[in-house]
Amino acid sequence: MPTFSLPSLENIREAHTAIQPFIHRTPVMSSSAINIMAGCSIFFKCENLQKVGAFKARGAANAVRKLSDSQKLKGVATHSSGNHAAALARAAQVAGIPAYIVMPKTAPEIKKAAVASYGGEIIECEPTQQAREEMLGKVVEKTGATFIHPYDFMDVIEGQATAALELIEDVEGLDVIITPVGGGGLLAGTLLTAGYMNPSLEVYAGEPQGADDAFRSLQTGERQPSLKPNTIADGLLTSLGEINFAIIQGRIKEIITVSDEEIKAAMKLILERMKIVIEPSSAVPLAAILKEKETFAGKNVGVILTGGNVDLGI
Amino acid sequence: MPTFSLPSLENIREAHTAIQPFIHRTPVMSSSAINIMAGCSIFFKCENLQKVGAFKARGAANAVRKLSDSQKLKGVATHSSGNHAAALARAAQVAGIPAYIVMPKTAPEIKKAAVASYGGEIIECEPTQQAREEMLGKVVEKTGATFIHPYDFMDVIEGQATAALELIEDVEGLDVIITPVGGGGLLAGTLLTAGYMNPSLEVYAGEPQGADDAFRSLQTGERQPSLKPNTIADGLLTSLGEINFAIIQGRIKEIITVSDEEIKAAMKLILERMKIVIEPSSAVPLAAILKEKETFAGKNVGVILTGGNVDLGI
Repeated sequence: MPTFSLPSLENIREAHTAIQPFIHRTPVMSSSAINIMAGCSIFFKCENLQKVGAFKARGAANAVRKLSDSQKLKGVATHSSGNHAAALARAAQVAGIPAYIVMPKTAPEIKKAAVASYGGEIIECEPTQQAREEMLGKVVEKTGATFIHPYDFMDVIEGQATAALELIEDVEGLDVIITPVGGGGLLAGTLLTAGYMNPSLEVYAGEPQGADDAFRSLQTGERQPSLKPNTIADGLLTSLGEINFAIIQGRIKEIITVSDEEIKAAMKLILERMKIVIEPSSAVPLAAILKEKETFAGKNVGVILTGGNVDLGI
Repeated sequence: MPTFSLPSLENIREAHTAIQPFIHRTPVMSSSAINIMAGCSIFFKCENLQKVGAFKARGAANAVRKLSDSQKLKGVATHSSGNHAAALARAAQVAGIPAYIVMPKTAPEIKKAAVASYGGEIIECEPTQQAREEMLGKVVEKTGATFIHPYDFMDVIEGQATAALELIEDVEGLDVIITPVGGGGLLAGTLLTAGYMNPSLEVYAGEPQGADDAFRSLQTGERQPSLKPNTIADGLLTSLGEINFAIIQGRIKEIITVSDEEIKAAMKLILERMKIVIEPSSAVPLAAILKEKETFAGKNVGVILTGGNVDLGI
């Protein structure tokens, strides 16, 4: 167990104020058709409409603003082929500092183009976890840049915690919040905010059956590795982080696992009924609600739609 | 040339107030990335987020509210396989009156399901224009229902005119508005509202090259039939209406035609950058702006995104 001190509500509010110029206060949307199907009132926090198309803009902006002046001079680095890569590149660009992003050679061109469009320097590597970590180590050694972990890092968690802050401020009378869980940055941040602002608010997570390491970790009480994860929810393939697990344990109400078919059906529902573009990971909480309707029946349920970066094949 | 009297601005405002309980005041969205590409500032009026997923909810609601009490008793009828069908069924349901919707046998199940979900009675016919009109005649004769034309009808045009009313109220300093043109209901309504509210506001339309009857009608000064229209913008296959043409002529600045490839590229841009779902017809104005950049350079351009009912194949 790592030692760390948790951000207070005051810290989270301070982070929110500090990053506000660089992020959107995203809208909360509802669909009466989906509410009827689900048997509860769902308030969707649209982080798919966030800068860079994902909540990751929050954590990256917060991590960058907390760097010391000498750290800022040398910039930031990470390895990621997903939303954190683009979010960190943008946060660095806004702050006027370098960003070094290690990406597997095989990453889709559209992901590389996004990082490049924010001025991030891309360093390619072989598409294995080991190659990514080794290359990152070399980059950090050479440049002196600060490694910003995508989720297992308190400043990032503190930033992600601001999404639930806005949701709780904007929707009166929430009974439940549900988020997806991958590495656990958003979920940990949401648990902290909810616990401070309204201790009776229950927090759930949805997780793909094909990448259910967080579910198994809670069951066994020990952090379980994510072995050969396989799901269309490509943002949730990562393993639950160490400090994320420590925060989640004992605070979360339940993790509900869902199949790829259930994720696809929920995604279709959101595209067709709400006319907004979400990536498959964002559909996981609605899939969980529709699977366990009795748990949420009649309640006011906040759902964080995490991102909208998906290739719809148009 | 038909004789008709145009609605005044006061009429349009009255329509707006009357239908307000039954429609959304849709948001106006912008994308800095798209603005950079286009070289102008675009304000997207999101009628894809309107009730039934299209601006057609406005015209249908207005036509139904203007029925006499004796007409209301017998209900409304139309032939359509598109957004007007669902919009009229919903407007009738809200008013508690019957709606008879003639649809081709071959209409997609999802379109029939939408009409049925609003309580519309579907009467199937062969998939030809003649069969549709004949069946509609029979239905009207049998039921006494009032035929609500999808666009060539002043009460419908007056309803569609309320979209531009909201856009002009919500965005200060617009120089231009551009809409797609199919039958011409939205375009005619937009021209009326813009002309009343700000005579210096220029109105353009975008039209698919594969269904360019409105473009040809303006060129020749006579309404041209839509012969074998063929475009992915399936909401724009219909022929320009008679009173629509009369309103458009002399008021519109220009119709810009675009290819299906240009429509697809604009649609992809909106899905990827704005994370909202639009149907291909909605992408036609952006395609026109990107095609004739010099026309719009540096201007504040309002775009009406007409609808979001599309099967993305998820």
